[in-house]
Amino acid sequence: MKSLVRFGVSIEEKLLARFDDLIESKGYVNRSEAIRDLIRDRLVSEELADKNAESIGTLTLIYSHDVRELSDKLNEIQHHNHRIIVSTTHIHLDEHNCLEVLILRGKTRQIQAIADRLLSIKNVRHGKLTCTTTG
Amino acid sequence: MKSLVRFGVSIEEKLLARFDDLIESKGYVNRSEAIRDLIRDRLVSEELADKNAESIGTLTLIYSHDVRELSDKLNEIQHHNHRIIVSTTHIHLDEHNCLEVLILRGKTRQIQAIADRLLSIKNVRHGKLTCTTTG
Amino acid sequence: MKSLVRFGVSIEEKLLARFDDLIESKGYVNRSEAIRDLIRDRLVSEELADKNAESIGTLTLIYSHDVRELSDKLNEIQHHNHRIIVSTTHIHLDEHNCLEVLILRGKTRQIQAIADRLLSIKNVRHGKLTCTTTG
Amino acid sequence: MKSLVRFGVSIEEKLLARFDDLIESKGYVNRSEAIRDLIRDRLVSEELADKNAESIGTLTLIYSHDVRELSDKLNEIQHHNHRIIVSTTHIHLDEHNCLEVLILRGKTRQIQAIADRLLSIKNVRHGKLTCTTTG
Repeated sequence: MKSLVRFGVSIEEKLLARFDDLIESKGYVNRSEAIRDLIRDRLVSEELADKNAESIGTLTLIYSHDVRELSDKLNEIQHHNHRIIVSTTHIHLDEHNCLEVLILRGKTRQIQAIADRLLSIKNVRHGKLTCTTTG
Repeated sequence: MKSLVRFGVSIEEKLLARFDDLIESKGYVNRSEAIRDLIRDRLVSEELADKNAESIGTLTLIYSHDVRELSDKLNEIQHHNHRIIVSTTHIHLDEHNCLEVLILRGKTRQIQAIADRLLSIKNVRHGKLTCTTTG
Repeated sequence: MKSLVRFGVSIEEKLLARFDDLIESKGYVNRSEAIRDLIRDRLVSEELADKNAESIGTLTLIYSHDVRELSDKLNEIQHHNHRIIVSTTHIHLDEHNCLEVLILRGKTRQIQAIADRLLSIKNVRHGKLTCTTTG
Repeated sequence: MKSLVRFGVSIEEKLLARFDDLIESKGYVNRSEAIRDLIRDRLVSEELADKNAESIGTLTLIYSHDVRELSDKLNEIQHHNHRIIVSTTHIHLDEHNCLEVLILRGKTRQIQAIADRLLSIKNVRHGKLTCTTTG
């Protein structure tokens, strides 16, 4: 059992009302859990600011496999970084569109560099990198 | 072959210089490709404003499996939404920490609701939802 | 004359009925002969290659998440073996049934041991391990 | 609670001793659970004999991405069958070797046909298909 402490927060009534509306719509059972999530998010983005910290990345890519040798190219770059890329899940969205979700583990700057490399390739139509840590 | 047209962009010198530095560091071969990516990103986030548009979500969760019945709970909620959740990849980060990456497909508001439900659970320490479309 | 012994088996009525239908269609004269064949098959397939060779395993599990704490248990065992298990893909087949596909990397005997541990758990209804190498 | 029945099995003493050794090494708590698993396995492989039954396939492929346009080709065939292939997990084993694990859902004959198509491609070095059902 983790030992809990309490602290007080001063806040404008209106601001609190808006916060309450938000967390209710998100399904939080109480304010403390919502506040803790906010604090964790803040700490994680702080950690990620240190580009040499160990982190975990989720990179989502959308492209069309119809473009000649694009799958080859993406696969080759990923293999070159096989020590950082833990796994790649590929969903065949339809006859043409590919969704790839890569899970990466390493220093934030390494993850960022691989994401930049893949996202800047012509015909990779859309992509997003999310970084996180175990906190 | 897609037919290309050209248009001109007016921009402050300093701003352009900063943009050039950025795209060079990201590995883009020219400004046009970088501008096209910016335009696509903008269009995608515009589409996501429409909560009834079909989209694809990548939800990243971090939690510790040591908490009793937490895996059960997450699994149960996910099954209840099995029509929206395409697959879940679980990486056993270490003896305690779990990384789950869910791929979701459905209306933006459905994806958002499932993410809210999972992220608001106590002991899900951190998480991020990314939405995108094939558009 | 080989010396025979008898032992009893507890089984769900429905499962036994299906087994009886099967063995009747196959022309078995009694259950004992059918069970003995199953046991022999199992022992034969146990004969395997060099258990210390490096290999890659794909383990497919089917279970129902409705059983209390089963997800917790499976997750706990997997984390204990996080150095061998590269990733686990979970497909929520329907409201009740879970498909998990684990990718494992290590010595054949380590992979086999983890598979045995997971498959012998009560309420893991079905599973198959496939081992391969990069050759 | 499912209703249980009991039945007796006659077996050679030596065969039973070997079976007992096996199930002990596999971690089963008693013979009944081990026998039930054998029966379920047998019923599942019987169900698969019906090529029109709905089943779930796990296809494991090993290939080298160095072969020109091989990734393109595999990706194209998979997209053509995107209604059957639920997800593909790709592990970058090393600088050269690829592991792909496809999860397929459909009629047994459809799954078998896709596996045959992918496994027969030149330079796909090794592969195995495992079929199962929720039954």
